[in-house]
Amino acid sequence: MMDTRQANQTAFERMMASQPRLVRVAPAGEVVPGLTGDLILHAGPPIAWDQMSGPLRGAIIGALLLEGRAQVEDEAAELAASGDIRFAPCHHHDAVGPMAGVLSPSMAVYVVEDSAGGQLTFSSLNEGYGKVLRYGAFAPEVIEKLRWMNRSMAPALSAALEQLGEVDLRALIAEALHMGDEGHNRNKAGSLLFLRTLAPVLAQVVADADEGNRILAFLGGNALSVLNPVMAACKAMTLAAHGVEGSSLVTVMARNGTDFGIRVSGLGDRWFVAPCEMPAGKYFEGYSQNDANPDIGDSTITETAGIGAFAMAAAPAIVEFISGTPELTMESTLEMYQITQGEHEHFNIPALGFRGTPTAIDAFKVVGTGILPRINTGIAHREAGVGQIGAGLVRPPMAVFQEAAEALRTQGAQHHG
Amino acid sequence: MMDTRQANQTAFERMMASQPRLVRVAPAGEVVPGLTGDLILHAGPPIAWDQMSGPLRGAIIGALLLEGRAQVEDEAAELAASGDIRFAPCHHHDAVGPMAGVLSPSMAVYVVEDSAGGQLTFSSLNEGYGKVLRYGAFAPEVIEKLRWMNRSMAPALSAALEQLGEVDLRALIAEALHMGDEGHNRNKAGSLLFLRTLAPVLAQVVADADEGNRILAFLGGNALSVLNPVMAACKAMTLAAHGVEGSSLVTVMARNGTDFGIRVSGLGDRWFVAPCEMPAGKYFEGYSQNDANPDIGDSTITETAGIGAFAMAAAPAIVEFISGTPELTMESTLEMYQITQGEHEHFNIPALGFRGTPTAIDAFKVVGTGILPRINTGIAHREAGVGQIGAGLVRPPMAVFQEAAEALRTQGAQHHG
Repeated sequence: MMDTRQANQTAFERMMASQPRLVRVAPAGEVVPGLTGDLILHAGPPIAWDQMSGPLRGAIIGALLLEGRAQVEDEAAELAASGDIRFAPCHHHDAVGPMAGVLSPSMAVYVVEDSAGGQLTFSSLNEGYGKVLRYGAFAPEVIEKLRWMNRSMAPALSAALEQLGEVDLRALIAEALHMGDEGHNRNKAGSLLFLRTLAPVLAQVVADADEGNRILAFLGGNALSVLNPVMAACKAMTLAAHGVEGSSLVTVMARNGTDFGIRVSGLGDRWFVAPCEMPAGKYFEGYSQNDANPDIGDSTITETAGIGAFAMAAAPAIVEFISGTPELTMESTLEMYQITQGEHEHFNIPALGFRGTPTAIDAFKVVGTGILPRINTGIAHREAGVGQIGAGLVRPPMAVFQEAAEALRTQGAQHHG
Repeated sequence: MMDTRQANQTAFERMMASQPRLVRVAPAGEVVPGLTGDLILHAGPPIAWDQMSGPLRGAIIGALLLEGRAQVEDEAAELAASGDIRFAPCHHHDAVGPMAGVLSPSMAVYVVEDSAGGQLTFSSLNEGYGKVLRYGAFAPEVIEKLRWMNRSMAPALSAALEQLGEVDLRALIAEALHMGDEGHNRNKAGSLLFLRTLAPVLAQVVADADEGNRILAFLGGNALSVLNPVMAACKAMTLAAHGVEGSSLVTVMARNGTDFGIRVSGLGDRWFVAPCEMPAGKYFEGYSQNDANPDIGDSTITETAGIGAFAMAAAPAIVEFISGTPELTMESTLEMYQITQGEHEHFNIPALGFRGTPTAIDAFKVVGTGILPRINTGIAHREAGVGQIGAGLVRPPMAVFQEAAEALRTQGAQHHG
């Protein structure tokens, strides 16, 4: 009989000890282990082309256009279906991406290093609003923006980080939670803290004044600028808790738009998978739930790390774009204490008397209480090429926690309540 | 018998219609009406040199050193006492300044224009932390920083504003209240929103890359950068409500470190004055209430305009530096609804279900309920030249509201409850 209680405590302590810092920006092909020529990474658990949802297919088409592997949509789709392109989850390469989460070799990525252990994690650069690859759009302006990010913004960020040395993302998240962010759907404050850190150095390293203006306007005008490095930080913290024998703590929750998958600390590389749920939320003018794709993206790594919907009590203003009332934000956080291992030692919520956020989902507790984790999320159109149509709330399927709990029991792990 | 109820409604509507925008940065002597050679402006109601507190004297000594009117402290103090220098409240010149609030002709000021009517209001540029003039420090590094602000930062801000046209301060305050600011002691989010707006243009207009770096680092590193333009915006909104016959709404609350003064909409230019109270709060290491100067500064214009302590429910994290508990922040805002005319139409608090902040103090209601306005404040050392020693909470003396209510009754105004 394994001591799950001790294992969970160990995993939780490792998560708390993790101190992710942003250290570099570089092309994914140069820094993400194993991301070579014919491989494209995507959000969520593994999935084959013919099972992929519209937005994920759209983003892969866009990536193939960006990489110059195809010139037009049909050609890209044919190539993607041909078997000549391999697909793998970002999580298999210590990376995370919001929504479709597609990452191909030429795309610039943030490189996050955990100062406790040196582990590297990765995320793409956020593209801002409107037609964007992460929501499955691949129109020429989408590709052109990605090219500009690779060509201009990424080298500038890289040079700025070289001067700064590092950006402490754990401290940034902690501060943003005191400024009305929850770190998943609302990253307004965090993005401004990020800009505040980068702006002076960017002004110095970007030689061309107009280009400096463009980069600062793009970073500052995007309230999700920091989402991607925050996700890479959350990946670092949850990865630190992974691989503790007997631990029932969830270290990955991710969706590919078709399936929802989790990984559990004591259960190695195995995914527990079930069909994604449909988010409930607020839709942009002209769209409804009929247009929506099921839940998609690696951004649930935020909830897995104790922020996002778990820290929603820090962000009462968020209901303006995900629906609900300020009371809901308080209830969300309070409910999550029932299914988590502990209270975060670094992330806390002023309105709850600076109580630490509910952190580290225990699969046994989810099954035992019947309370599913809460997730804040963006909503993508179900067809390739359209983009975001809303934002809202969702929960994972219960089956993945039941199967994980069963697998833990089979291994001799036991819930101590 | 004047209709106070109608008069207060009119004054309140004018306050709501006011839409202050930051339009310019220029030397005070060029733009503040009547601020010529021998005049120095200060916070609070009128006061003579021999009645001034330590920090106000210190700031005036600093201003005389900055203006080149004296070379050393003693010479400056002698000149200040000689009668050759005139003193007047900032408020007599539509200006406001935090703490000592000293403004002399060469200092750069923010110029705020009310798009409803074109009225101009003014405030100094915030100096950041450490030894600063507004807390009564006048050491060589204080003067050198002011010179750098005049020489480098102010022209850069001026050029940036010329490109931007304007910055909508009412919208900025509204957004900052959704990001954990209350707009008086906590301006973290507002200062970053301000930086976000200015940074791209500053990167463009500042030719020297190192100087661009210094200016952006100074603005971004100062969580009070936006306090001064916010105060000028609050002055604009309260000024719009001033001068309505029969109105018992308070349009100025200000302290000079010796006296607390208010002005009331229906009572013209008359000040109602009583000795300042001592703030209760958190002191920096090595200091206590024994070292503190009584309440000082024009920054209570924020509470007068419905933010600051009145919006404290928006800023639970503020208790970390002003003392108290998150519950106190909620109680503060809720209590202020009892003495105010209405709920702000543009500033609201997510945690209170987006309820408008309690706005426009009614002198009759203060006297009737016995509830004094709440004020968040910085605390200055009582001696000239030291600086800030803490931050905390204070209330005005009741006498000023009683005298104002009496004056209103003498004029035939009546409280309709």
